[in-house]
Amino acid sequence: MSRYDAPLTDMRFVLFDLLKAEPEFARLGFADATRDVLDAVLEEGARFAREVLAPLNRVGDEIGCTLDSATGEVRTPPGFKEAYAQYVEGGWTGLVTATEHGGQGLPHLVGFPIKEMVDAANLAWGNFPLLSNGAVEALSVYGTEWQREVFLKPLVEGRWTGTMCLTEPHCGSDLGLLRTRAEPRGDGTYSISGTKIFITAGEHDMTDNIVHLVLAKLPDAPAGSRGISLFVVPKFRVAQDGSTGERNTVRCGSLEHKMGIHGSATCVMNFDGAEGYLVGEPHKGLMAMFVMMNTARLAVGLQGLGLSDRAFQNALVYANERLQMRSATGAKFPDKPADPIIVHPDVRRMLLTCKSLVEGGRALAYDAALQYDRFTHGADDAERAEGEALVSFLTPIVKACLTEWSIEVTYDAMQCFGGHGYIHEHGLEQLARDARITTLYEGTTGIQALDLLGRKVFQLKGAGLKLMLGRIRDFCEANGGKAELAGYCSALSELATQWQQLSVELAQRSGENADELGAAAYDYLLFSGYVSLAYWWARSVAALDEAQVQPAFAEGKRATARFYFERILPRTLAHVAAIRSGSASLMTLDAAAFDAGR
Amino acid sequence: MSRYDAPLTDMRFVLFDLLKAEPEFARLGFADATRDVLDAVLEEGARFAREVLAPLNRVGDEIGCTLDSATGEVRTPPGFKEAYAQYVEGGWTGLVTATEHGGQGLPHLVGFPIKEMVDAANLAWGNFPLLSNGAVEALSVYGTEWQREVFLKPLVEGRWTGTMCLTEPHCGSDLGLLRTRAEPRGDGTYSISGTKIFITAGEHDMTDNIVHLVLAKLPDAPAGSRGISLFVVPKFRVAQDGSTGERNTVRCGSLEHKMGIHGSATCVMNFDGAEGYLVGEPHKGLMAMFVMMNTARLAVGLQGLGLSDRAFQNALVYANERLQMRSATGAKFPDKPADPIIVHPDVRRMLLTCKSLVEGGRALAYDAALQYDRFTHGADDAERAEGEALVSFLTPIVKACLTEWSIEVTYDAMQCFGGHGYIHEHGLEQLARDARITTLYEGTTGIQALDLLGRKVFQLKGAGLKLMLGRIRDFCEANGGKAELAGYCSALSELATQWQQLSVELAQRSGENADELGAAAYDYLLFSGYVSLAYWWARSVAALDEAQVQPAFAEGKRATARFYFERILPRTLAHVAAIRSGSASLMTLDAAAFDAGR
Repeated sequence: MSRYDAPLTDMRFVLFDLLKAEPEFARLGFADATRDVLDAVLEEGARFAREVLAPLNRVGDEIGCTLDSATGEVRTPPGFKEAYAQYVEGGWTGLVTATEHGGQGLPHLVGFPIKEMVDAANLAWGNFPLLSNGAVEALSVYGTEWQREVFLKPLVEGRWTGTMCLTEPHCGSDLGLLRTRAEPRGDGTYSISGTKIFITAGEHDMTDNIVHLVLAKLPDAPAGSRGISLFVVPKFRVAQDGSTGERNTVRCGSLEHKMGIHGSATCVMNFDGAEGYLVGEPHKGLMAMFVMMNTARLAVGLQGLGLSDRAFQNALVYANERLQMRSATGAKFPDKPADPIIVHPDVRRMLLTCKSLVEGGRALAYDAALQYDRFTHGADDAERAEGEALVSFLTPIVKACLTEWSIEVTYDAMQCFGGHGYIHEHGLEQLARDARITTLYEGTTGIQALDLLGRKVFQLKGAGLKLMLGRIRDFCEANGGKAELAGYCSALSELATQWQQLSVELAQRSGENADELGAAAYDYLLFSGYVSLAYWWARSVAALDEAQVQPAFAEGKRATARFYFERILPRTLAHVAAIRSGSASLMTLDAAAFDAGR
Repeated sequence: MSRYDAPLTDMRFVLFDLLKAEPEFARLGFADATRDVLDAVLEEGARFAREVLAPLNRVGDEIGCTLDSATGEVRTPPGFKEAYAQYVEGGWTGLVTATEHGGQGLPHLVGFPIKEMVDAANLAWGNFPLLSNGAVEALSVYGTEWQREVFLKPLVEGRWTGTMCLTEPHCGSDLGLLRTRAEPRGDGTYSISGTKIFITAGEHDMTDNIVHLVLAKLPDAPAGSRGISLFVVPKFRVAQDGSTGERNTVRCGSLEHKMGIHGSATCVMNFDGAEGYLVGEPHKGLMAMFVMMNTARLAVGLQGLGLSDRAFQNALVYANERLQMRSATGAKFPDKPADPIIVHPDVRRMLLTCKSLVEGGRALAYDAALQYDRFTHGADDAERAEGEALVSFLTPIVKACLTEWSIEVTYDAMQCFGGHGYIHEHGLEQLARDARITTLYEGTTGIQALDLLGRKVFQLKGAGLKLMLGRIRDFCEANGGKAELAGYCSALSELATQWQQLSVELAQRSGENADELGAAAYDYLLFSGYVSLAYWWARSVAALDEAQVQPAFAEGKRATARFYFERILPRTLAHVAAIRSGSASLMTLDAAAFDAGR
């Protein structure tokens, strides 16, 4: 079975040395987020992940969730329910929720490492509390006073969980096609009917009630995505006074059989005239849903990060233990029958690929959390606007790149194990199967790419990009003169210029031919991810000067930064070539001719 | 469930138009390999794959093999045994075996498409007959007269199957460490004792006997890999007259629980003083095992190809059926509620990535088969030497690149399905899980990379590389003047020069620092694969002039070649940068400092 120990040293480095969390939190008014508190939270989160969640990861995979089709009830894997009770008991569910809604009001920058730990320890389990956060955010912004009073408290306390009911059998990315109907009943409530699929935690045995946030169409809805409304539909009806009543007519019809995350209940949910309450204005549901979706997308990025880190940790242990062949430059452990495979350059290539993507990805993701905190708690409008622009720009990058890299990292980690990686015993193959969902749900990588280039760069006139480029240039100006950083800064400056040029080129070309956007989006997204990571690796090296870290830690950062710039960053060359090749090579072939070879 | 129809049109194009199989077979003396015969073989193979094997793919995954631990007997999934009987009945087991050993003596260039079809239809099933070929080859070259008489016929006829027993719990790539012992009994037989793991088809219920080819050490063996001998150890003892007798003391101890290929029996085999017979000379077993391993490596490359092709086929069907959003340039199917997703540039990017890697990979792999046929049937020594040099050079490229690309192709195909790709129903996730073994067994990608650069390029003084570069240059000289091919030839010529330069640079650097080889090997391998594919794409376009193909087929080839050169080939830029960065960024970090962040 694979082990998991949270990377507390690196998490602290990113928080306190790289992102200067202590002065930032003080400045942003998070009075409770002192270093002592944060250290205690991180330590306790690591303990919970290691001792409670990680041991349940394999049983979750092997036994999974089961549906009693007679009753529609779902049983979670052994131990999951008890672990959830402990999680609630520990106060984790409301960690980052505002105190006015019953939460602890800690910064997202603290919630992110906790979320990373939970997902690394047990991704399937982590999906049960996951969407409550989104439901809380949507209800706290768009809910009526009654909805906030009745639903928020139990969600924040973890007594109930939330879901996001978007997808239907015939529509996922294109919600304009959805068919679920909401009929007004005349008493202010609505009757919701339709089938939703891929509903994470749609049904389970962990809590007394489940709060579904459901997209549906009112009878007078305009066609397409401008005619979608949002409803809250509880599993058990809720009276005016908040007391729960009879069972609502929403029921789990089946559980999906999936490649991984077997412990996560992925439900088909049938709404059969279920009682629901309108959230926000009619036909404006998509906007509210985007509030939920954006935090969910960042959360999925963290899932990719967590799985990657765990795969890396285990590959590293194995590479230090597994004895196979001698180092090409002579035996390093002549007293052993062979050298540990970490002496071999190609094994190191894989391990350093993991390390560079994991630790660089952590800095990238946690910075997005800090920008979120600046958005919600910034000192003034200008800072809040800047935080919002940056976090919205970084969201598709974090979501897509950290999940794409989780595919690569779990792949490389398995390769380090050779054939042993393919069998259940070591747990690596489960990490790879679990990781595979992350580039699909909450919007595929292709959807994130369109969001980044089409919406965040083109529609928002590059507000976030300009800020990001400004940060890179400021850093390079301040550090380009230092011997250790000169090379990195010169590469980074060039890439920043290229990033800007590519954005301008693409805006122009897309104006002439609308397919140019979609043709470039994926490679533009990956290019953006690699340049962002280069920025964070250079900043990580720069931060070592003042950081209180062990020499081995500093050595690891310096060597990995070098590896990243020499061996990973050149991938941008291929992405730039693909971006500049335009849409013609994609669009000319007739759909019918794709498979003329069969 | 995923469908599978063999890509007969493309297979015929590669065989007859690209590789000129008809005149080549006539020249090489394959008198029976006429066009009529080959067409019939391909048609029947496609039918068998579609009707018999493909329908068993899912049940093989869901039920898998089961071990009766009381008896050590293994039961294969429902239908597997019956399909094997039909396979034997159809004469497929001896398709490419020499007629002198009871086979049909057809060229490997015919065996390859059949193998591709079998693996695409049902990889797990394909593993049962797979290793019989290697056993036949090892025994026909190194076996005694008695061994050839007794073992070859039932193996070729498929009444028995073969295995390769190499790996032990503590050694896989490093066979010098193996511990299985062979004690001479004084009667010419040996007593074999030890544990072998990851033994494909080590035990099953399809045949009356199983012939294990086992690596073990004699009592007087020199240390390391120069002290390994090869033994044949049948499940049931075989008398002098070839009749089978009592059960030998070799037994399946357990079946591995794997990520995929559940229908393939991956056995722990315990040899407990089992009767065995020495194959070839004492201590020279590794050489004989390499005979088996080389064909097995090409076969695994074909496994990657077959799975990729099936994933591509299914993604294409889905992309033409799934309606989601409108084309950016205006509705293409205004009568439908949305356009099929194949109108979207990013979906096309994924499909064309699949198509370019699959069809290019097919040409690359089938050419290796032709070189193998030239090696065994060449008109003179010079041709046989040339065939040998080329096939041995191409083997690690075919094995590693086609399997690495199968990871990418099954990934992209799943992405086309969105969340639907992650559930069992569509069969895509099974293809991805099955594909995941191919970069691990028969030598990981890292091992193939060392074989290519260390052995095939450095030790063999680049004989195969020179021939390959010569072919590229000849092609470019002959075709560089044609308008359609000028751009491709100019890119190819430059890459050929770079390939040579990199090889020379690396030979020099490795002479100075032995770690430089391992540091560059992986990227050198991928670089070699991408340049080879560029050659085959250019040749595919060139071959269209004289080929009898439909316009849509030709359009598909031309568009995909363009896509490949514009959007995939630039990956060589990143690989060259990594190769030239040298070993320092990999080797300086202390092993203990890799995980100082935890």
